[in-house]
Amino acid sequence: MAQKEKDFVKEIANIDTDFAQWYTDVVKKTQLVDYGPVKGTMVIRPYGYAIWENIQKELDTRFKATGHQNAYFPMFIPYSYLQKESEHIEGFAPEVALVTHVGNTPLAEKLVVRPTSETIICEMYSKWIESYKDLPVLINQWANVVRMEKTTRPFLRTSEFLWQEGHTVHATESEARKETLDMLAVYEEFAKTVLAIPMLVGRKTEKEKFAGAVETYSIEAMMLDGKSLQAGTSHYLGQNFAKPFDIKFLDSDGTHKHPYQTSWGVSTRLIGALIMAHGDERGLCLPPKIAPIQVVLIPIAAHKPGVLAATKKLATTLQKAGIRTKVDDSDQTAGWKFNEYEMKGVPLRIELGPRDIEGGVATVSRRDKAGQKTTIQISTLKKDVLALLDDIQTNMYIKAKVFMDSHIKQAKNMTELADAVNNKNFALSMWCGDTACEDKIKTELAATTRNMPFDQSPLGTQCVCCGKPAKTKVYFGKAY
Amino acid sequence: MAQKEKDFVKEIANIDTDFAQWYTDVVKKTQLVDYGPVKGTMVIRPYGYAIWENIQKELDTRFKATGHQNAYFPMFIPYSYLQKESEHIEGFAPEVALVTHVGNTPLAEKLVVRPTSETIICEMYSKWIESYKDLPVLINQWANVVRMEKTTRPFLRTSEFLWQEGHTVHATESEARKETLDMLAVYEEFAKTVLAIPMLVGRKTEKEKFAGAVETYSIEAMMLDGKSLQAGTSHYLGQNFAKPFDIKFLDSDGTHKHPYQTSWGVSTRLIGALIMAHGDERGLCLPPKIAPIQVVLIPIAAHKPGVLAATKKLATTLQKAGIRTKVDDSDQTAGWKFNEYEMKGVPLRIELGPRDIEGGVATVSRRDKAGQKTTIQISTLKKDVLALLDDIQTNMYIKAKVFMDSHIKQAKNMTELADAVNNKNFALSMWCGDTACEDKIKTELAATTRNMPFDQSPLGTQCVCCGKPAKTKVYFGKAY
Repeated sequence: MAQKEKDFVKEIANIDTDFAQWYTDVVKKTQLVDYGPVKGTMVIRPYGYAIWENIQKELDTRFKATGHQNAYFPMFIPYSYLQKESEHIEGFAPEVALVTHVGNTPLAEKLVVRPTSETIICEMYSKWIESYKDLPVLINQWANVVRMEKTTRPFLRTSEFLWQEGHTVHATESEARKETLDMLAVYEEFAKTVLAIPMLVGRKTEKEKFAGAVETYSIEAMMLDGKSLQAGTSHYLGQNFAKPFDIKFLDSDGTHKHPYQTSWGVSTRLIGALIMAHGDERGLCLPPKIAPIQVVLIPIAAHKPGVLAATKKLATTLQKAGIRTKVDDSDQTAGWKFNEYEMKGVPLRIELGPRDIEGGVATVSRRDKAGQKTTIQISTLKKDVLALLDDIQTNMYIKAKVFMDSHIKQAKNMTELADAVNNKNFALSMWCGDTACEDKIKTELAATTRNMPFDQSPLGTQCVCCGKPAKTKVYFGKAY
Repeated sequence: MAQKEKDFVKEIANIDTDFAQWYTDVVKKTQLVDYGPVKGTMVIRPYGYAIWENIQKELDTRFKATGHQNAYFPMFIPYSYLQKESEHIEGFAPEVALVTHVGNTPLAEKLVVRPTSETIICEMYSKWIESYKDLPVLINQWANVVRMEKTTRPFLRTSEFLWQEGHTVHATESEARKETLDMLAVYEEFAKTVLAIPMLVGRKTEKEKFAGAVETYSIEAMMLDGKSLQAGTSHYLGQNFAKPFDIKFLDSDGTHKHPYQTSWGVSTRLIGALIMAHGDERGLCLPPKIAPIQVVLIPIAAHKPGVLAATKKLATTLQKAGIRTKVDDSDQTAGWKFNEYEMKGVPLRIELGPRDIEGGVATVSRRDKAGQKTTIQISTLKKDVLALLDDIQTNMYIKAKVFMDSHIKQAKNMTELADAVNNKNFALSMWCGDTACEDKIKTELAATTRNMPFDQSPLGTQCVCCGKPAKTKVYFGKAY
């Protein structure tokens, strides 16, 4: 692209000394994203959007395999709907964008641009659901949502973002609770096998749960600076929305009942997670399953007879095997290209020059082991590349898992807790369950409860903060 | 679904005597769509959204095969951007939704919810494009857009709708003009082979072109009531946006130039086209390539041993062949099911009962020849069903083509024009090119110019309206 964007290589800030600037440099200079004209908005450029398309494809397949269907609900919600669930309006009111006029004409009722769709979807469900035979309703929506937050960063927190939101309705509490946890498990498995990111899975505290939920569960990832990124949530809503929206069904026992609901979502935030879980001083490092380009082929001495043709032949072989492959035969230097595709996080680079061709080999560099080169036989190219991509995927997960595991510290008191979270770790602690202790820890250490793991085998008997009897084991961490 | 929606069969209005009510009944009762709470908005229900997903998949493949990439631009556009291109603001200002507040806080500049994205995309292109090496830019966006129109109907005209919008930038006029026509051809081919709808392809008049374009081309479909539906447009924008948005590139000759642009789009309106091009007194009739369910299997006397298992076995065979198949083993009567899936437009119904199983056959009904039944051998099921689906697809296109061709009348004067458009026809006429004649025809006959075909071999020498020398051959019709 433009010349000013071609001299970036040395312009990425140091990942160890200025992680925040490194992130900003990487997202801009790899052309994942640009800033939109309205404060806090982002443009997702083709390279970034291709990652989102791969995320969509992988998740959508999983949603459909578990019986869900997609639908689309209007983006404009009457303001009065938001007020029907009291916690919900309290949580979202300050940051909602309001449509008040069409052209020069004021509207009778102001419209909310959806920050999430529980209210409008429940309004429709109340019309559609009459009998137990109509249940369960298993609907997902891919959509844009708007939350006009004050402090924004590309992918992590933007005024408008893309996401999916599942909204399900069930006849019984146990079925709805099962759905909540089943979808959480779908997210965890997807994060592990596709994004190569290990997750801490557990329940959010009362303070941190979704506005309107009975219980919120989350998957939390560890970024390379030791901070936590909430990467997905699954909410058990109970009857909190069914009652104010008057969703009722005639059960098989002949009585009318309110059903039980769930909602669950992940967003373009996952792209931020990918960047900060796997990147390094060279830039992005993308897991093969999500990378828009899995293999880049670079002809060496491309002007010499046969080199470009041989390179394109390799590309065709790989493309036929379903591998997302790009040939860069531009007139940039080989060195520039190496930097460029390393920065863009392409999992595998293959160089092919006259001497390689003579020897029937190609030179291969793995992005996850940047700087090392190996040789593969052209005769077994397809098999070897597929094996390498698999190995990179696995290796990246293991590396991220080892990193997270080695950055979780048990903390029994405030000193240990401070030591953990101030040194790029999560802390695992016992807690009395009082919001007062969460507030104190947030004020003093800028750390929050991340979630309460399903494994509640106790580490001790006293709250990490107040020393009173502990009720729950919980992760603390600084967070995005 | 709900009981009130199970008694619909006789509730569809007569297609011949009340086409408008027939349309409303069909979209609601087949659960394609429901009305949203805000006036003019629609909820696209799973059955309708599945059609949109199939449209997206087919088009997206074609866009990528022609070198385009997807991206995502913010939905909120500063009001001042819309004012930069004078025709553009004039065209869209009265119907734009305006965001003026976040929570209780008024915004410094009001924000437009995109009615289309030329302005914000051009703003970004002016930042990204510097050199001829950056061209062409070939970007498409899948998004929601908002136009708060006064009279709305599901799919045809709604306040918010889903669409794709391509936005490309080229170094030369000829390349941009070629892109405009290439994408028009993509739309035409898609409509023909996937939607089974023939299109009139041509250029819009000055009066009917897109606000801001140099030239607009369209594909126009004929609905069963003889009205036209503009189903897609492709705009040659020239430098109309490049100049006010200051998009410039350094050409290979060392000088700075404004590039040439195109934009092109189709929307959820296409679902309306499908309904009104193929439906009949029984309801929807969907072409196999776009139908969410291609084959429905109905067990007859399902309580008898082996029937349900045999039906499910057939379903598995078809599903393995990639055919979208549903088994309805609910406790509704066979008659109810026949009506239900005919109304829903499922291309092929297969009944399987004890006697069929004994004879090694199944009973088949084609939706496009409803009421006729034939028998196929179970041993050749897969091959026969694939051939039947192909034949239905072809037959539906031919039927629609014959219908349209037989409803295009040549009209040499206002009497003939009135006779044509008042009797469910398009008129093909010679025209002087003056907007005054278009206005007069619109006022007197409620018919508009649809487009000017590429084949301009003259039908005569005089304008159909004023009798002055004719310049152009043009289609007139009543339109949605």
